[in-house]
Amino acid sequence: MRLAHAFAATSVIVLVAAAGCLAVAPNEDPLPSWNDGKAKQSIIDFVADVTDEKSPEFVPPPERIAVFDNDGTLWAEQPMYFQMFFALDRVKTLAPQHPEWRSKEPFASLLKGDAAGALAGGEHAMLEIVMATHAGMTTVEFEQIVKEWISHAKHPATGRLYTEMVYQPMLELLAFLRSNGFKTYIVSGGGIEFMRPWTEKVYGIPPEQVVGSGIKTKFEMRGGSPVLVRLPELDFVDDKEGKPVGIQQRIGRRPIAAFGNSDGDLQMLQWIGAGEGPRFALYVHHTDAEREWAYDRESSVGRLDKGLDEARAKGWTVVDVKQDWKVIYPFENE
Amino acid sequence: MRLAHAFAATSVIVLVAAAGCLAVAPNEDPLPSWNDGKAKQSIIDFVADVTDEKSPEFVPPPERIAVFDNDGTLWAEQPMYFQMFFALDRVKTLAPQHPEWRSKEPFASLLKGDAAGALAGGEHAMLEIVMATHAGMTTVEFEQIVKEWISHAKHPATGRLYTEMVYQPMLELLAFLRSNGFKTYIVSGGGIEFMRPWTEKVYGIPPEQVVGSGIKTKFEMRGGSPVLVRLPELDFVDDKEGKPVGIQQRIGRRPIAAFGNSDGDLQMLQWIGAGEGPRFALYVHHTDAEREWAYDRESSVGRLDKGLDEARAKGWTVVDVKQDWKVIYPFENE
Repeated sequence: MRLAHAFAATSVIVLVAAAGCLAVAPNEDPLPSWNDGKAKQSIIDFVADVTDEKSPEFVPPPERIAVFDNDGTLWAEQPMYFQMFFALDRVKTLAPQHPEWRSKEPFASLLKGDAAGALAGGEHAMLEIVMATHAGMTTVEFEQIVKEWISHAKHPATGRLYTEMVYQPMLELLAFLRSNGFKTYIVSGGGIEFMRPWTEKVYGIPPEQVVGSGIKTKFEMRGGSPVLVRLPELDFVDDKEGKPVGIQQRIGRRPIAAFGNSDGDLQMLQWIGAGEGPRFALYVHHTDAEREWAYDRESSVGRLDKGLDEARAKGWTVVDVKQDWKVIYPFENE
Repeated sequence: MRLAHAFAATSVIVLVAAAGCLAVAPNEDPLPSWNDGKAKQSIIDFVADVTDEKSPEFVPPPERIAVFDNDGTLWAEQPMYFQMFFALDRVKTLAPQHPEWRSKEPFASLLKGDAAGALAGGEHAMLEIVMATHAGMTTVEFEQIVKEWISHAKHPATGRLYTEMVYQPMLELLAFLRSNGFKTYIVSGGGIEFMRPWTEKVYGIPPEQVVGSGIKTKFEMRGGSPVLVRLPELDFVDDKEGKPVGIQQRIGRRPIAAFGNSDGDLQMLQWIGAGEGPRFALYVHHTDAEREWAYDRESSVGRLDKGLDEARAKGWTVVDVKQDWKVIYPFENE
């Protein structure tokens, strides 16, 4: 089916869950894109336990909070974070207004088409590119810029819209959790305002349930009307140790389930795992070089090394993408 | 009725609203503690408009977000912010562990019972007291400290629990909005973690819908278990220009209704008012020296000066507590 139909189907599930008055067919597989196996069964068992009022593991609905990393957990992240493609495209678009970029790194390399050279400057170069492309406008303007880009930009390898490169099994998991009274959140190292304009449509996750990295903003009156101006100054980095900090700050209670794919998610999984009562922690392990990408301990993007060891030691669920996922992307069902 | 019963009654309203499948008696007054008049009517008209699918003012449920200041809007704030009573009590409790406080201001004055003298040091003194009492423990420990204090501390003038000094008309308003598909948030200058332990029980507002001022926290492993340690360093001040910043950061979309009582809420009301489509802005004006307190332009706590002028110029709803509220506190109905 086409992507528009996938969205429509997701919306129907969301509406049914929201209405809460309709019965769900009892024998329907809630996770049809998951192969039968330990990973799928662990999810189904956990949800059955926490929603069974007679179980000692029962969790009241307000405490059914599940947090999801985004890059590599809900959508793909290779050959680099999709937000970097956005930033690079923005540099090209803005270049005519910045003649100085022609001789200034990392912009000069970028404009010559040498992205690798530009990013050789490491974190500092990346931060310069992000600030030059994500700051200096109002929040309303930035939202429009993201909406416009995400509606047409295509992935260099697949030629697909980035929002088509979301994981079908995870869309089903999000819907399954919500239909069981869970509130689903994104907790991502990615930019919070880069995600919010499209997460509701693509994942059924509204802006207020998105936690991410962000820059500072400043309230200002312009022509008698208030605006929030985006400043070139980091406010919060929602990665590694930052994820539990972000969860406490933005959600204010400990989730009972967390889903990630990299060492950047490890502290989040540790944090939710240390709470009382039933807990569920899951890592997506990218093992399918044919249908997607295969990477873990040595990858510069989405490295999964310490996390894989800890998952095995603690008995967390590890999804083997090649074995566990029948389908990767929604467009495979077209 | 006793407070426990008031809470129970509130819970029933919340449950009915959450279920969403039950019909509400059409002729029942949703705001029985509000006297008939312009303020009450403006609320009822706004809610009728945005929930009427045939109205050009219709707003889809996900966008029905309403934000409420806390101090002076949902509960009282005189003779000083209730959180300051908490801080002063904590100084007394912690004094035996801090012999140096006996000769160090602002603690020395405080411990001699001279709160006014201690606070004469202004913002700096207040910040010192807050940091000494709100930082240095884990988030889990602080939550317990707040829960314990709020369950027994009494207001010096009324002898009531602080959570009994919430405004009955505002409890009805919160429930009325939620039963019409609104998501209700607190956006307060008060400490976010000082509010979260009790807002769900008292207002029906869960921790994830509380925005407030906060200090930084740090992720740490202690004995193999992760904790978040509260640091004596301001992270965010959710007041004045900070309120729209906090709303964008934590909610990520512009609310359509905002409720406040002081100049500290002015930018929040301006921000929501500047959005497209139907908007509702309301100020609670404290005019009842007999049943509560009367204060506005000259008050050091909850000053309402510029806001009052702007409300009149822009036609925002201004609640005259003496005229508009039949009842102030739930315990008056006992």
